[in-house]
Amino acid sequence: MWHGHASHDRLRLRLTEAPGPRIMVSNMLRVKLVGAGGYGGVGAAEIFSRHPEADLVALVDITDVGTKISELYPHLRGVCDLTIIDAKLDTVDADAVFFATPDRVGMKNAQRYVDLGSRVIDYSGDFRFNTTETYSEYASRINIDPDHNAADLLAKSAYGLAELHRDEIRSATVVGNPGCFAVSAILGAAPAVADRLIDADRLIIDAKTGVSGAGKKASPLFHYPHRYEEMNAYKMCKHQHVMEVERELSLLAGKRLAVTFNSQVVPVVRGIMTSIYAPLADGIGYDDALESYRSFYRDEPFVFVTDENGTVGNRHIRGTNRCNLWINADRRTNTLIVMSHIDNLLKGQAGSAVQNLNIMFGLDETAGLGGPGMYP
Amino acid sequence: MWHGHASHDRLRLRLTEAPGPRIMVSNMLRVKLVGAGGYGGVGAAEIFSRHPEADLVALVDITDVGTKISELYPHLRGVCDLTIIDAKLDTVDADAVFFATPDRVGMKNAQRYVDLGSRVIDYSGDFRFNTTETYSEYASRINIDPDHNAADLLAKSAYGLAELHRDEIRSATVVGNPGCFAVSAILGAAPAVADRLIDADRLIIDAKTGVSGAGKKASPLFHYPHRYEEMNAYKMCKHQHVMEVERELSLLAGKRLAVTFNSQVVPVVRGIMTSIYAPLADGIGYDDALESYRSFYRDEPFVFVTDENGTVGNRHIRGTNRCNLWINADRRTNTLIVMSHIDNLLKGQAGSAVQNLNIMFGLDETAGLGGPGMYP
Amino acid sequence: MWHGHASHDRLRLRLTEAPGPRIMVSNMLRVKLVGAGGYGGVGAAEIFSRHPEADLVALVDITDVGTKISELYPHLRGVCDLTIIDAKLDTVDADAVFFATPDRVGMKNAQRYVDLGSRVIDYSGDFRFNTTETYSEYASRINIDPDHNAADLLAKSAYGLAELHRDEIRSATVVGNPGCFAVSAILGAAPAVADRLIDADRLIIDAKTGVSGAGKKASPLFHYPHRYEEMNAYKMCKHQHVMEVERELSLLAGKRLAVTFNSQVVPVVRGIMTSIYAPLADGIGYDDALESYRSFYRDEPFVFVTDENGTVGNRHIRGTNRCNLWINADRRTNTLIVMSHIDNLLKGQAGSAVQNLNIMFGLDETAGLGGPGMYP
Amino acid sequence: MWHGHASHDRLRLRLTEAPGPRIMVSNMLRVKLVGAGGYGGVGAAEIFSRHPEADLVALVDITDVGTKISELYPHLRGVCDLTIIDAKLDTVDADAVFFATPDRVGMKNAQRYVDLGSRVIDYSGDFRFNTTETYSEYASRINIDPDHNAADLLAKSAYGLAELHRDEIRSATVVGNPGCFAVSAILGAAPAVADRLIDADRLIIDAKTGVSGAGKKASPLFHYPHRYEEMNAYKMCKHQHVMEVERELSLLAGKRLAVTFNSQVVPVVRGIMTSIYAPLADGIGYDDALESYRSFYRDEPFVFVTDENGTVGNRHIRGTNRCNLWINADRRTNTLIVMSHIDNLLKGQAGSAVQNLNIMFGLDETAGLGGPGMYP
Repeated sequence: MWHGHASHDRLRLRLTEAPGPRIMVSNMLRVKLVGAGGYGGVGAAEIFSRHPEADLVALVDITDVGTKISELYPHLRGVCDLTIIDAKLDTVDADAVFFATPDRVGMKNAQRYVDLGSRVIDYSGDFRFNTTETYSEYASRINIDPDHNAADLLAKSAYGLAELHRDEIRSATVVGNPGCFAVSAILGAAPAVADRLIDADRLIIDAKTGVSGAGKKASPLFHYPHRYEEMNAYKMCKHQHVMEVERELSLLAGKRLAVTFNSQVVPVVRGIMTSIYAPLADGIGYDDALESYRSFYRDEPFVFVTDENGTVGNRHIRGTNRCNLWINADRRTNTLIVMSHIDNLLKGQAGSAVQNLNIMFGLDETAGLGGPGMYP
Repeated sequence: MWHGHASHDRLRLRLTEAPGPRIMVSNMLRVKLVGAGGYGGVGAAEIFSRHPEADLVALVDITDVGTKISELYPHLRGVCDLTIIDAKLDTVDADAVFFATPDRVGMKNAQRYVDLGSRVIDYSGDFRFNTTETYSEYASRINIDPDHNAADLLAKSAYGLAELHRDEIRSATVVGNPGCFAVSAILGAAPAVADRLIDADRLIIDAKTGVSGAGKKASPLFHYPHRYEEMNAYKMCKHQHVMEVERELSLLAGKRLAVTFNSQVVPVVRGIMTSIYAPLADGIGYDDALESYRSFYRDEPFVFVTDENGTVGNRHIRGTNRCNLWINADRRTNTLIVMSHIDNLLKGQAGSAVQNLNIMFGLDETAGLGGPGMYP
Repeated sequence: MWHGHASHDRLRLRLTEAPGPRIMVSNMLRVKLVGAGGYGGVGAAEIFSRHPEADLVALVDITDVGTKISELYPHLRGVCDLTIIDAKLDTVDADAVFFATPDRVGMKNAQRYVDLGSRVIDYSGDFRFNTTETYSEYASRINIDPDHNAADLLAKSAYGLAELHRDEIRSATVVGNPGCFAVSAILGAAPAVADRLIDADRLIIDAKTGVSGAGKKASPLFHYPHRYEEMNAYKMCKHQHVMEVERELSLLAGKRLAVTFNSQVVPVVRGIMTSIYAPLADGIGYDDALESYRSFYRDEPFVFVTDENGTVGNRHIRGTNRCNLWINADRRTNTLIVMSHIDNLLKGQAGSAVQNLNIMFGLDETAGLGGPGMYP
Repeated sequence: MWHGHASHDRLRLRLTEAPGPRIMVSNMLRVKLVGAGGYGGVGAAEIFSRHPEADLVALVDITDVGTKISELYPHLRGVCDLTIIDAKLDTVDADAVFFATPDRVGMKNAQRYVDLGSRVIDYSGDFRFNTTETYSEYASRINIDPDHNAADLLAKSAYGLAELHRDEIRSATVVGNPGCFAVSAILGAAPAVADRLIDADRLIIDAKTGVSGAGKKASPLFHYPHRYEEMNAYKMCKHQHVMEVERELSLLAGKRLAVTFNSQVVPVVRGIMTSIYAPLADGIGYDDALESYRSFYRDEPFVFVTDENGTVGNRHIRGTNRCNLWINADRRTNTLIVMSHIDNLLKGQAGSAVQNLNIMFGLDETAGLGGPGMYP
């Protein structure tokens, strides 16, 4: 059994009040989900079905209004049967609001919820950059409107990669949940950059994602007969997650970095496998690198470091909130090679979002996130 | 023999002691798993990681002794890190023992555990037939030794399909967990047979299983490049689960039935989809059939009945302990058609085993089994 | 109208002229493809790339006009680089026209090509029924306009299942290419019905198709993350191919039959596996059935009969124009069980179309169709 | 229709010289296949079924002796029904012998066939290195016996990558067919190295293969339920194909190179996708690189170069003998990025072998290899 060590106060409250008339529910953290009908929404609903201290209280979307989420996703029947409501009619009180929505939805709607006392976690790029200038640069790179509509909130926002920004997340009003590729790339490269193990100006990141990364919208590119037995690179060097990777690694490096980033898709459904390459710095050997990674992530509940004698695969992390890092070096070319594996829908999306929620509200960081997934 | 774990006592104990120093764990039901290294073992380990009242206390196997199960199945790391021990050295005390083992292992070893006070749930055909005569018939059909080695235990055994044998399971010393195909077929046909909706002598059962049904042992037939894009029938009319299907349906029919059963494998990993056909009896129409199914399963937590206007697919039940039944009739040929869907590794194996455990020990029947699985 | 390409003349011409300067090409049968951009079109293009006596001369479609088919389907680059032309601008002369188009396109356009001297093979239901009355019944069953727009051509049409209608196909002006499920079901049941092996009023047909059967149009139901690990029945008893199955089997039975037909989809891309069940007639045993099937298909180049000691799977026929029939009987229930396997895109579509073309123009029936496919 | 334009001289020669009673057969090139039962064997059998000028005349293996290959691979029924014979009893005369066998089989047996007048194509590493010293280095790297048993033949051998060694192949007695990863990596990097576009000391090669690369032998790592949804790196920096990559690129560079090579496996069956990265040399821009690649492969029938505005995926080459190269540059980091795609079983194995055969015997290099594969 996985033991979610909830904060003792909360737990005592719930246990003693349990038999009474539904007071219990009021002790659960109340979470509202905007954009409930996508993979990011259903992933959150799955997690909250196991979360001991937080519950979904409302689902909001612009499509499928009036439909139970368990009709869209029948595996949720009996687990989460909330009906999707119209954003305009949303009056449900919530401690936290998840925006599982595309770029520029969160920024237009977050303030309203903040004014009602909610804290916000946004899945898109809207709150991943803490100034309007950096947002504009991001937006320009991916050809969307460069004006940020909620500049005030940006100042109160944090980048939601817990392993690097836990303290800021704890007090943030809004958290910009990181991109899936970015989670795998940043966690995979951070110790090497921070501890000056490598020539960080020569980072090459070769990232392979499963198909669910493209979301639930049907398209010819992800039509089953087309996609089975297919693999390809896309958005070569232009993926929207590159800039947050560069920002985070630049912070760690203490100088502005540019990385070579190649996004590819392979026919798995869940999972990202990212290969990270860089020349080892003078005087740095494999053992130094391994020790750096182990030290960097020593207290992290979700990051696992494996040495070169181990093995790492997608099955280790599929269905979990983990990031597995396999540390290797090519001694003939003096190159550090890190394989970084995450489940793009969990640590890469809904899992990180709940991890952030747990941090923001002082819960056990692993609450709801300790499960093993499913094998085979 | 097991004595006196009334559910209410257990629960009270846990609730009051909860905040104190981990006495709590000692109140958990203690389960031992023999044959831990197979899919049936890992499936149980996944469930117990979520089970609020039962825990694995020992893993026993003849292979991989000395290895942590989380090394075999790395997704269990931090969730279940027990080391597999040798059956001969097994001295761990347990309330229940799961035999996730092939035919004829459980019958040779169950008595020893029963003598130590454990109750037993066996995954194989060893305890699915309650007399040595019927066991011999079963064994002969599938060409294994027809002598049962534990005749005494047979008298204290129950067939572990909870929806039909809940009361017997509650008091049984040994439960013979049902075959995966059998679960889908019996649940799919039971109301029609019991309520005389059909000509039960003309039952045709066309069953499609995912590849995990063949277990974890590698073979050319299930080699990835061979199996992708493959589908085929096998063991035509001779599958080992047919006899338990016939026994159960014969009990319901009040006469000996023979069914036409066609086992097929398709390239999904988890899931069974079974089509059941039989002529509607005189005077029986679709509405009668639907009402019969709804009534039969009205109080069942894991069986869902859908009418002809609904839809049912593998995604509805994958990763869950559910059985979904889609009730149809071809009015032009006056034929009842029931589509029965289960996850072969859960309701078809480890899930039913835990459901039986819950019944045997007076726990909530759904404990540990309420999760939604994972989509996509 | 096409005149006088007797196969022997053609062949002699080609052999004698072969070494000379490319007169050869002008002796190739000229085929035009309407609806080139779908799976039925690309499948035909693949076959013609290997066909020794027929060539594509024009591709017509309403979408992708001006695009080379090898841009849509890059594996055709250097193999078939024809540009898709607008139907309205189509003035290319052709011996035969394939309509790889949905229902009601062929009937509206075939006459024009027939007037220009072409013979027509239509993939849809438009010419599968030889009277306007039966067409109306078909159309009504599947809720499309019941009026046939080309009644004259119906009288000159043949149902394009070569094994049953070879002579009619040879002289037909228009051939209605059969539905994929229909090919597998009719070939699988025909000898049993024709030779009175079974009680044909109790035929049950359980058919599983790969996903390509749904065509190339993206939809949420066939989105990769949704469809992997999915399987489900659909259009229960109402599939559009049922009526042609019943018509053909009724012709063989000499009486009107209704069949119970259950269409299902499993996550393979190419392939249909159909289980056919019926009670054996009085006095008929397994050996009689096997002999009947062997005799029925003795001279057929594409139908293979396997006895109960063999095995049959999708890999046997994937990428080929074959139909494999595995003949079994359940002696306990006295039921004939035939497993019928085809590649839905070849024998179930483009392969049958080319087979029909070969028959219509007096070519070797296997020309272009003898390849083994690809394994793994 | 694909036109295999055989060289006129050869064709005339073969037609006129055909001695003895087997006139027709004797005009076809006679090929013997040792190691017929593996994927490399079946792939060759598929190609020869379409080859206009070469035929398989004998299949030799140490397992499955006495079995028709069409029993092992039923899709070959009627296409290639040769019976596998024992190597010891092999007396069939052949122009060429394919060794589709593991390391150290070819070197022990090739001389015997050469003495009988055959020329040899070996799929393993046995003849990829033209001196015993380089063979020893290769063998030591992968922990096999470093002594080469056929030193004389090494002097008469050529490395079978046609695009770089066509002339040597033409006259070689033995051809060492290249490794699948090596084909994709070498073709992808060759122009950049040869034309000094890059800093070749900093080449990083990230290679993803389909599962068929592991061969037909079942193993737990490639068991269907394990492998679906799995992806992982393996043999990190130690893959057996690295040394031939380095040898070939070193020849082009005019200096000894070491490359960083990361072999990964993803759940496709057929296909390799290789990402190649290196810093652009001073003064070299994207346009220079593109022009270099176009020029280098201008006359190659199987290598296609696509510029950065195009797209390339596995479906473009699956089932074909092609190599597709997609040329990109990251201008922010001044890095050349080439995506190289091949079908590992064709251009990466049996296809290259037949291409080499065609070259060795003066046939049209594309004979038997022009087909489009199959989509979807």
